[in-house]
Amino acid sequence: MAFTLPTYVEPDFNRPDLKDAPLALFKPVELPGVAPEGYHATAIFPEYYHLRPGVWKLPRLSRMDCVVVLQENDHLEIKEFRNLAKGDLVACGRREDGEDGIYVHTEPFGGTASEKEKFAFRTRMSRETSFSIDYDELYDLLEHEREHGFICWVLGPAVVFDRDSREAMAKLVKDGYVHGLLAGNALATHDLEGAFYTTALGQEIYTKRSASLGHYHHLDALNRIRALGSMKQAVQSGQVKDGVMKAIIEQNIPYVLAGSIRDDGPMPEVIPSAYDAQDAMRGVVKQATTVIAMATQLHSIAVGNMTPSYTTMKDDSVRPVFFYSVDMSEFVVNKLANRGSLSARSILTNVQDFVVTTARGLDSRRNC
Amino acid sequence: MAFTLPTYVEPDFNRPDLKDAPLALFKPVELPGVAPEGYHATAIFPEYYHLRPGVWKLPRLSRMDCVVVLQENDHLEIKEFRNLAKGDLVACGRREDGEDGIYVHTEPFGGTASEKEKFAFRTRMSRETSFSIDYDELYDLLEHEREHGFICWVLGPAVVFDRDSREAMAKLVKDGYVHGLLAGNALATHDLEGAFYTTALGQEIYTKRSASLGHYHHLDALNRIRALGSMKQAVQSGQVKDGVMKAIIEQNIPYVLAGSIRDDGPMPEVIPSAYDAQDAMRGVVKQATTVIAMATQLHSIAVGNMTPSYTTMKDDSVRPVFFYSVDMSEFVVNKLANRGSLSARSILTNVQDFVVTTARGLDSRRNC
Amino acid sequence: MAFTLPTYVEPDFNRPDLKDAPLALFKPVELPGVAPEGYHATAIFPEYYHLRPGVWKLPRLSRMDCVVVLQENDHLEIKEFRNLAKGDLVACGRREDGEDGIYVHTEPFGGTASEKEKFAFRTRMSRETSFSIDYDELYDLLEHEREHGFICWVLGPAVVFDRDSREAMAKLVKDGYVHGLLAGNALATHDLEGAFYTTALGQEIYTKRSASLGHYHHLDALNRIRALGSMKQAVQSGQVKDGVMKAIIEQNIPYVLAGSIRDDGPMPEVIPSAYDAQDAMRGVVKQATTVIAMATQLHSIAVGNMTPSYTTMKDDSVRPVFFYSVDMSEFVVNKLANRGSLSARSILTNVQDFVVTTARGLDSRRNC
Amino acid sequence: MAFTLPTYVEPDFNRPDLKDAPLALFKPVELPGVAPEGYHATAIFPEYYHLRPGVWKLPRLSRMDCVVVLQENDHLEIKEFRNLAKGDLVACGRREDGEDGIYVHTEPFGGTASEKEKFAFRTRMSRETSFSIDYDELYDLLEHEREHGFICWVLGPAVVFDRDSREAMAKLVKDGYVHGLLAGNALATHDLEGAFYTTALGQEIYTKRSASLGHYHHLDALNRIRALGSMKQAVQSGQVKDGVMKAIIEQNIPYVLAGSIRDDGPMPEVIPSAYDAQDAMRGVVKQATTVIAMATQLHSIAVGNMTPSYTTMKDDSVRPVFFYSVDMSEFVVNKLANRGSLSARSILTNVQDFVVTTARGLDSRRNC
Repeated sequence: MAFTLPTYVEPDFNRPDLKDAPLALFKPVELPGVAPEGYHATAIFPEYYHLRPGVWKLPRLSRMDCVVVLQENDHLEIKEFRNLAKGDLVACGRREDGEDGIYVHTEPFGGTASEKEKFAFRTRMSRETSFSIDYDELYDLLEHEREHGFICWVLGPAVVFDRDSREAMAKLVKDGYVHGLLAGNALATHDLEGAFYTTALGQEIYTKRSASLGHYHHLDALNRIRALGSMKQAVQSGQVKDGVMKAIIEQNIPYVLAGSIRDDGPMPEVIPSAYDAQDAMRGVVKQATTVIAMATQLHSIAVGNMTPSYTTMKDDSVRPVFFYSVDMSEFVVNKLANRGSLSARSILTNVQDFVVTTARGLDSRRNC
Repeated sequence: MAFTLPTYVEPDFNRPDLKDAPLALFKPVELPGVAPEGYHATAIFPEYYHLRPGVWKLPRLSRMDCVVVLQENDHLEIKEFRNLAKGDLVACGRREDGEDGIYVHTEPFGGTASEKEKFAFRTRMSRETSFSIDYDELYDLLEHEREHGFICWVLGPAVVFDRDSREAMAKLVKDGYVHGLLAGNALATHDLEGAFYTTALGQEIYTKRSASLGHYHHLDALNRIRALGSMKQAVQSGQVKDGVMKAIIEQNIPYVLAGSIRDDGPMPEVIPSAYDAQDAMRGVVKQATTVIAMATQLHSIAVGNMTPSYTTMKDDSVRPVFFYSVDMSEFVVNKLANRGSLSARSILTNVQDFVVTTARGLDSRRNC
Repeated sequence: MAFTLPTYVEPDFNRPDLKDAPLALFKPVELPGVAPEGYHATAIFPEYYHLRPGVWKLPRLSRMDCVVVLQENDHLEIKEFRNLAKGDLVACGRREDGEDGIYVHTEPFGGTASEKEKFAFRTRMSRETSFSIDYDELYDLLEHEREHGFICWVLGPAVVFDRDSREAMAKLVKDGYVHGLLAGNALATHDLEGAFYTTALGQEIYTKRSASLGHYHHLDALNRIRALGSMKQAVQSGQVKDGVMKAIIEQNIPYVLAGSIRDDGPMPEVIPSAYDAQDAMRGVVKQATTVIAMATQLHSIAVGNMTPSYTTMKDDSVRPVFFYSVDMSEFVVNKLANRGSLSARSILTNVQDFVVTTARGLDSRRNC
Repeated sequence: MAFTLPTYVEPDFNRPDLKDAPLALFKPVELPGVAPEGYHATAIFPEYYHLRPGVWKLPRLSRMDCVVVLQENDHLEIKEFRNLAKGDLVACGRREDGEDGIYVHTEPFGGTASEKEKFAFRTRMSRETSFSIDYDELYDLLEHEREHGFICWVLGPAVVFDRDSREAMAKLVKDGYVHGLLAGNALATHDLEGAFYTTALGQEIYTKRSASLGHYHHLDALNRIRALGSMKQAVQSGQVKDGVMKAIIEQNIPYVLAGSIRDDGPMPEVIPSAYDAQDAMRGVVKQATTVIAMATQLHSIAVGNMTPSYTTMKDDSVRPVFFYSVDMSEFVVNKLANRGSLSARSILTNVQDFVVTTARGLDSRRNC
């Protein structure tokens, strides 16, 4: 089945209410990191700012719960509160229908009834929801995105706790279905533990036998990489025989490993500051056209927060950003489903099965 | 990999403590359905009864939480309490080490250290437990059992809520991997709903679109079968175009559908009485050498209760009965894991993925 | 806070579309247990049948997924399909807006905006949903229902696995907050096990110590009651020292114990046939004005299926039937929440805490 | 019931195998942050280092997965790998029975059979595990610790999403049962949102009504505090009318808020670096004699990793550190239970009920 992107429908700014709308108001920041009273906070939808009579501007690279700063040449920058500098001009106004010169476009792709209907019945997932169609549509999407998009994966460590799933994930990387990786120290640590000792947390990842002194393995893997200076050097030296990080590094795929208070080590490439990590993660997410988040509540929700429902391409066309969350837990998956975007999907299953099935599904299509 | 059954190791009845053990005591039932004081209740392990000096007898077709009745020709019948008749001679004694003439053999196959070790590390499952090896070993097992054993499946309705999973399950039946089916009214009802209307609970099983008046579909399927008299007649008349029940009926595979208080309808073949259903289910389980229970807490636990850890084959050899439980819920899976048998395994995943992966895995082996 | 029942708002049958609606069509049953083509299936809402021009009749004692049979004197009987007799006149027509002479009244109590709003925001529960207000409103409700209603409890065995929870539940019975009990064999068995041996499944219900030969306790409790003939006789003989069943029996509260395929024993009072049990359960539910279902997926959903969103009182007034489901599992609770009735509430917590908190909350109000 | 601490039993270093054990080996660090080959990693148990013949030293303030550095005057410092400086002398040896001069004391308090038995049966928790005794023992413990110990709470935001639970938690603080608080930005943010707007994530924490423009509330709370400079200043200015943070600040209780990639804002007091936060958290945990972690997988596991099973008091006595995890999820609770310490307990319930019940239970004892 050929995959087609839904068409973006621009708002009609000739509608009387929008035509007569006031200009958006911008107030200066007085204290760094503090927004002016009445600031407007962004949603996941496209938002237009009435900058001059008849001129409504859509900022690029938006994300939720930020503020909009007017810069030179009508450039609108989407900033986290903590990044606000004194003097920044912040859009103010909380009405979303144009009355404050701000228009939030909540149905950017749902123009036709059939588009809308396509998603409307998928509101609530449970372990009994069928998802054959979700796999098939995901294959269509990933084939399209492999050539024309940017697929960002958000991975919890469970992906590398199993032999087949770890191999399938590495294969997805090598086959071109991974353009960015967001994860934490644990993913890298246990993936390297697997490469060095064929264990995860001391247990053989295939046979599940507990290795002798296996509880040292993840610490030894960390210590060994720390001695070498970086995972990149370990890969280049030939010491890493397989795994997800090896594939990522060899393919030069951008990755961000965010530090957390659960970390041992950490791996040298891990970013200690949560907010530096957010900035780096958003640097990857800004390029993303599809995000697949799995087996990590923390990272899935963090990335969900910084992923808009749409993006503006280089040719100025606007397209959806698809967001998949894959987890065993109804709780996690529903948290993300609450975003309310039509482009968010959930699959409730064990990520081991998901990764193996997806890699095999894409592979069998390529070989047909 | 060639599959080999673990070897059964008989107890050594020449051990002094067993040699000098008293004979087992049997007391008569006075009230029907009531065991005599001090009755012995069966476990899931092989148990031997000291009938005459030096003669220890292992009953056939045991199950947990029953009593042992001595009949003619030294036959030992395993009976549920409710099936006890007046005058039945019930084995009494609660010590399991021979001191009451009863010996419970708790390590029947774990003779060698390597056998024991093979299973010992698998005690506790979580969603992060790897299970590539479990799939591989399951394929080995099912290929063996297809020829030499009896594979009993216990299915919840979620298996037929998804198109690919429903098709994969029907394929497993046609390919010879299903020798008995235990389920409830809901499995049959929604499978037939799928055959008649391509929906489950009114939702298209592939597209998930809600069908118009779809909430009538399961009632209509029930009403239609009730009018025809049975699912068998519906299949024979050619009205059932696909699905699990069609495959089961066409292959003449024994099945038991147990009634429950959640049922609409029910289907004509459903057994209303819980205890008649238990008897019919045990009739199938008695033949089983492998049981795979999935997506149903009620039926999984019910069947787990009546499945021993071993069985005696026609040639009097003793072999393990393997028991798999597959579910999304740690709670359900751990309930069954608590049986304590080395032959019990758990896989925590969505059954849709499990069935599709298993059917594909077996298929790719056959085609190699 | 004084509790007030929401007011029932009758449909306006003078509306032109209803005034001109055709009469409802009734077709005879030809095969017992099989509804005629085009039968109408009931919902959980009040439904009116156009029997004679201008005369719309609301049947009493409805439930979901049944058919409506016209009997003498315009009596409308709500029947399960399996109870249909040859010649029964079944209402036909699937449009719910009067066009088939059938009108489904989906907003019977939500007349005012404030009533509607009161419930509208409570659609989706998670473990993070606050529920202080639910406890407070439940206390108001139970105090009202104690005097003026009929409170039906649906209990899983976990309620009696804990000492405090078992005592609190017995106290609720003694204090008049329980007018009917629906459960299975396991609740009774483990409650009696607690009374005889202070254990549940062989574990001390307070200290959690495993009792010596404790795995015999539930079988011994069953055997002992079976020897006596009934739990009632055991209570009357003074052998049952405490617990939920003792309180229920001493207060002459109607109870139904439905058999299931998981049962050992069973207790003599347990009903073997799922459909006889359904009839008996519905006999209790027909009287219910509030249902509280907890810690049992099977019974909660079974009772949910047979509980309408409203009931007609002796004085012909119509009032809501409140339905609470209390469970640890988002999956179970959301299954019930999908009923769509405004009078359904969910509380996600451990039932031990729920019962203890509720008993204490009601007690402290009574003592103020 | 009077609470008594279990007695610490020192190892017998006159045992021949320990008497003849070699001295512990210490090797210097060559690269900062990298341990020497063969380093010894700490467990949660007391560990003794053979420093001079017959002299075995127990380090103070240990934690899991760290290394032991020998400093002046035989001081043994427990260091995270990342804190290792060049030249640090690190204990090496992986045998735990003395053969490397290192002895891990795995049964420090389980000396008597009754002590051991007391905990042995509590290995595996499910939602059906009874826990009346856990509440009672917790009350005993907290009353003792209030006077003689240091109670450290680890809180997820769900605690302040509910009115009663938020009030009960503040009461526990005021009543002296909280000596340290470890949490994240979300707890503080939603607690302050509650103080300013009586909402959490925009929903009224009692009525659950969605407030108009409520999705701005948490951002407004953050912005308001950021403008003031700190929560402390907000509390001192009288602007914070109630809540957990107000109580904590007014009682001068030490707290650490660790930043995470999910954060908006953040609050000024939040520590951005995961590893600075770990150091600060461990600064609090070092004082702890009881830790109660609830409703946060991330923080619970992080704190679990840095909490030993014992601590050395000022008078050099050794006592257990009790660790409770309270959560709705079997997965989270079992992850922590896997620590293997006898002093770790789990309660599976909704934290709202847990906090309200605990505050009420302690209160009723004080008023008896």
